[in-house]
Amino acid sequence: MQFTPHTRIRRSPFFEATVSAGAAGFTTYNHMLLPAGYGDPEGEYWRLRRGVSMWDVAAQRQVELRGPDAGKLAQILAPRDLSRCAAGQGKYVALCNHAGALINDPIALKLDDDTYWFSIADSNILFWARAIAAERRLDAAVTEPDVSPLAVQGPQAAEVIAALFGEWTRGMKYFHFRRADLDRMPLLLARSGWSKQGGFEIYLLDRAHGMRLWNTVAEAGAAWDIAAGSPNANERIESGLLSWGGDTDDATNPFEVRLGKFVDLDFDGADEVVGIDALRRIRRDGPARHQLGVILDGDAPAPPHPLWYDITVDGRKVGDMTCGIWSYRLARNIGFGLVARDMTAGMRVEVVKGDARIGATLTVLPFA
Amino acid sequence: MQFTPHTRIRRSPFFEATVSAGAAGFTTYNHMLLPAGYGDPEGEYWRLRRGVSMWDVAAQRQVELRGPDAGKLAQILAPRDLSRCAAGQGKYVALCNHAGALINDPIALKLDDDTYWFSIADSNILFWARAIAAERRLDAAVTEPDVSPLAVQGPQAAEVIAALFGEWTRGMKYFHFRRADLDRMPLLLARSGWSKQGGFEIYLLDRAHGMRLWNTVAEAGAAWDIAAGSPNANERIESGLLSWGGDTDDATNPFEVRLGKFVDLDFDGADEVVGIDALRRIRRDGPARHQLGVILDGDAPAPPHPLWYDITVDGRKVGDMTCGIWSYRLARNIGFGLVARDMTAGMRVEVVKGDARIGATLTVLPFA
Repeated sequence: MQFTPHTRIRRSPFFEATVSAGAAGFTTYNHMLLPAGYGDPEGEYWRLRRGVSMWDVAAQRQVELRGPDAGKLAQILAPRDLSRCAAGQGKYVALCNHAGALINDPIALKLDDDTYWFSIADSNILFWARAIAAERRLDAAVTEPDVSPLAVQGPQAAEVIAALFGEWTRGMKYFHFRRADLDRMPLLLARSGWSKQGGFEIYLLDRAHGMRLWNTVAEAGAAWDIAAGSPNANERIESGLLSWGGDTDDATNPFEVRLGKFVDLDFDGADEVVGIDALRRIRRDGPARHQLGVILDGDAPAPPHPLWYDITVDGRKVGDMTCGIWSYRLARNIGFGLVARDMTAGMRVEVVKGDARIGATLTVLPFA
Repeated sequence: MQFTPHTRIRRSPFFEATVSAGAAGFTTYNHMLLPAGYGDPEGEYWRLRRGVSMWDVAAQRQVELRGPDAGKLAQILAPRDLSRCAAGQGKYVALCNHAGALINDPIALKLDDDTYWFSIADSNILFWARAIAAERRLDAAVTEPDVSPLAVQGPQAAEVIAALFGEWTRGMKYFHFRRADLDRMPLLLARSGWSKQGGFEIYLLDRAHGMRLWNTVAEAGAAWDIAAGSPNANERIESGLLSWGGDTDDATNPFEVRLGKFVDLDFDGADEVVGIDALRRIRRDGPARHQLGVILDGDAPAPPHPLWYDITVDGRKVGDMTCGIWSYRLARNIGFGLVARDMTAGMRVEVVKGDARIGATLTVLPFA
């Protein structure tokens, strides 16, 4: 499918570099082009699993809260106790609306007492945070700063990062970050990324250096055969990572999609948090749906899933298959099911793709 | 540029029909695929100007406000006096945030006293309206209903619509709408659309009928040589229609982009409207920038504008060229400039495209 450019859809500071590197497809994410592959899905998958891959994830925009009430605002937006979050630390948070529905699942980064970032998935948290801040008359400016993450992911990512920034980086804790400098480019270095293969994200703080940062990382990584990749559907589905907006609908709450462990409801100040009453109610009653893995029968690779498909039992709909991909590791077509809570791992179901009905088995996530 | 499908990016109920009709490119708009052309830009332009064209604009999503406080909420969100808006009437509104920056420019449709829709441009008003409604404790449910507009645009649109729905449609006033029925498909018919060539929008109220509605319109329009088109950059730029997010940035206010005439600041209840203080201040002081047409020197067609380009005078930046297209009618490359307010029509400027500097003249909008 051909994409028609428009000024509404922004370009990453790494855009030209990704085109030069052979980006074969793009998606849009937060009104920005996001490379979605370089023409060799299996090679990109195994590089991520066994080596090291570099990704333009500038589309993972930052929403900055800054001012005397920034911490208060961050806490009002996130149903997770942030009181012990240190400067230089990030926490995965399930932002919810007043009905307790998940509206984004960013990393909240605390830069200092007066400055927080949400490193967001693909929904508009800039408008949301501004609305809440203004309506509650908080003294916190909400902006989208000039920050563009470049991810370095895979088991050998630590080698590349150590070569670039020094041996100290091997000691960084997960979701921690700090200011760093590379050849006078202003950066934050974080131990994070949207895979379960380990890695780092380099937050570029001045888009003018996009091409130079890309090339610097590519050169340092050459010894480990680094190459361009992108957020990898095969790996993230095997690993059970959520894609907000892909695996969620307008009513999905965090308990339905395995984010309950990141939700705190009973800390000091929790009563101010957006959605807290609804979330407490859902926790008490239990969510209507939950998320399980789906393993389709058959061992011939099917194309990726552009749509949700019904999951049925005896012709009765019991849920939706929200994503689907060929697993190179399991050699099966797999995906996520958002299914009624009486559906459990091991049950047999059918996935309805148009006129086809494909037998499948439910399983726990992540895939074994 | 190849687009990679993802479940985050939804499909219109007309999607299969537009593919069959030869859609040659897509963009994304409100997390939905929006056809952006059928391979013959000039033919599509002249069909819109001289005949009749049909567009899948399902991506123009509706945000529904429903409940006892729906009218109050609509008025709080829109800085325009809606007190005399009748059921069945629409009004173009400039939604602003608390700083007076434009966050969307929808048509507000009043269905009845308890039900309003915003027929939105490409930004997330669902979250925004929910935040304001909840924070102000209003009794209004905010949802995205199953509503998918199909536009019929061009000087002969009235013929096609009369053939489909009856002669009464010729008397419809601009931005008015009513329930209509076509072969048992539930619809609203509105006199509206994102062109200045006249036309209608058929709001399909049940996505299951997408293919049938498309085919019904195509068959009725055949006598007038109707064909698939899309929101037309050439025509909308010539006509001076704003593209939110394309021609605006995070700080653009309605006075900067010629929407001041749709802004009311001094009616009963205005004090409750989001952004009213900021808008009153901007009106008093005058906006920092304003929008003018830009006519580039030279008469060779240039490709469309995927990026903003600097507008300079004597090497000093005075604004941005936010869109650009070849005008078939004027046989010149034209676009919009968002420029400092001391820049006026008739002035000579330069447009900086990478290493190239192209002479240009500022002019009033719409283009003569």
